[in-house]
Formats: sequence, C-alpha cells, structure tokens
Amino acid sequence: MQLNTLNDLLEHELKDLYSAEKQILDALPKMARAASTPELRDAFDEHLGVTQNQFTRLQGVMSELGINPGSTKCEGMEGLITEGQEIIKNGGNAKVVDAALIGAAQRVEHYEIVGYGTARTIARELGHSNIAKALQTTLDEEAAADKKLTKLATGGFLSQGVNEAAPQQAIAASK
Amino acid sequence: MQLNTLNDLLEHELKDLYSAEKQILDALPKMARAASTPELRDAFDEHLGVTQNQFTRLQGVMSELGINPGSTKCEGMEGLITEGQEIIKNGGNAKVVDAALIGAAQRVEHYEIVGYGTARTIARELGHSNIAKALQTTLDEEAAADKKLTKLATGGFLSQGVNEAAPQQAIAASK
Repeated sequence: MQLNTLNDLLEHELKDLYSAEKQILDALPKMARAASTPELRDAFDEHLGVTQNQFTRLQGVMSELGINPGSTKCEGMEGLITEGQEIIKNGGNAKVVDAALIGAAQRVEHYEIVGYGTARTIARELGHSNIAKALQTTLDEEAAADKKLTKLATGGFLSQGVNEAAPQQAIAASK
Repeated sequence: MQLNTLNDLLEHELKDLYSAEKQILDALPKMARAASTPELRDAFDEHLGVTQNQFTRLQGVMSELGINPGSTKCEGMEGLITEGQEIIKNGGNAKVVDAALIGAAQRVEHYEIVGYGTARTIARELGHSNIAKALQTTLDEEAAADKKLTKLATGGFLSQGVNEAAPQQAIAASK
C-alpha cells in the first residue's frame, strides 16, 4: 500500500504484525517439538500461550481502528521461520540444534520488538493512547521472552556434551 | 548442513552472516536513494561504508577458520530486504516513507545484532578469542547504527508535515 499518512503507516505495520503472529503461532509448536532440552521446550510452549494472547490483543487493536487484516504476508517473518525450519530439518547433535534454535527464535523476537515498537510509537503520535498501551504490553512481553532465551542459553543448560565447551550464551546484544 | 558440533554451528552462523552482508551491500544504496530526509540518506550512505568494512572483516574471520562461504542464502535477510523494497516501490508521502524505511532498516540491524551476537558467543566458547573480538567489533557497530536510527527518528526530523503529528520515534525497544 502507498504510505501517504501516519495512519497508513500504522495500518501497514499492524497488518505486517498480524501476518507475523499468525506465522509464529504455526511455527512455535514445531520449535517446541524439535527442542531437546526440557527448559527450552517449556519456554517455547509457554511462549505459544503468550503469542495467542498477543494475537487476540492485536485483533482487538485492529478492530478498534477498523483495519481489516486482509491477506498481507509478512515476508520478513516468513524468511526467519524458514531458517528455523531448516535447522530442524537438517538436525544434528541435540544440544547444538537447541543452541541454533535459540538463535533462530531470538531473530523472531527481535523482529517483533522492532515491529511493535514502531507501531506503538506511531499510535502514540496519532493520539491513540489505549492502542499504544496495548502495543507496549506486547512489546514488553517480547523483550521478556528474548531475555528468557538469553538466560536459558547463559544458564549452562548447554554446558555439557557439545564439543569441549558449550555455549554459555547463544545471544546477542549483551556482551 | 547438519549441526553436529559447535564448530558446525559457528560455520552455519558465519555463512548466514556472509550472505546477509552481501544482500545489505546491495540494498543500502537503494535505501539511500529512496530516503528524502538528508540526515537519513547520509546515515544510509555512512552505513554502507561501515558494512563494506564489516564484510571484509567477516571474510577475514572465515578465511582464518578455513570456511568457504559457499552459496548459502540468508533467507531471513532476503525477507527483510524485500520488505524495504516494497516500501520503496509503493511510495507515498516522503516523510512517511522515510519513517517506514527506518523501521525496515532497524529490522535489518536487529537481525545482525542477533546473528553476530550468537556467532561471537560460540567463537568465544570455542576459544577463538581473536575471532570473537572481531565479531564483537561488528556487533558494536550494528548496535551503534541501530541507536543512530532511533536518534534520527526521535530527533524530530519527521516532526512536520505528516498527518498532524509525526513520529518522534520510529522505534522500538526504548519506551
């Protein structure tokens, strides 16, 4: 769609997130089944529940703004999820695959962090304070999920049986 | 590739980043040409130079590890870049398009932040301290680029002419 106003941009971002969430809802159970470490499987399962709530919240936001989700496909999320699927398909050592899945999942989380952050800011600028608040709630949840994955990876659950040393962190922004 | 060891995972991550950087090098000049605000255009142009250095640094890392980049395609980055291209193709109000481009560029930065962070951590675990340091340098540059985009968006450069109010922030993790 042409982006002529901030309303257009908000609609564009929300439709993108709608498609992203739908794809994540489909992918998360597969990620959970592929994870070997119980804590990682539990984290994916738990995030599935959180994502279901986020999707309902997003539907509420769009309904309030009179936006029909339409058939927009989030191509960014499609690529990220494909990467996760390829890790699962190719397989290997269970703990190494788990470490790779954490990296794939954090790419997804970071996509959502940018997407929801952008939408939240535009909503705020447009004076939609309740909508901005709802989007902020999801953003906070995504940031928490990302931190949880980092904590899992840094908590030593991968600390045996992978090469001679295993990843203490599979992530990212933290030094 | 099968992920049997942490060495495999490091190779997997580095090949992914190699393809990602190549795609970014191709996309950034188009992003710069599409940006209307001089500061945003300059930021994209400057980041092109930074990315060229990062690509050379990555080639050095892979060469040191004896990894041939091969023909791996980073599908995550492909999707993210497609999103940016669609924003450019669809067009609209120059400042709204700029705001959308910032969101697209930050999705790219966050992908790289996770990718380089993951690779850095694995390199560290494998005892490749110089390689971990090189990857950390790129990670720091990506984080700085992301912050710069946030600063641009929050610095008021979009503060006139878009709807009645323009985005003070087009991003993201910051509240």
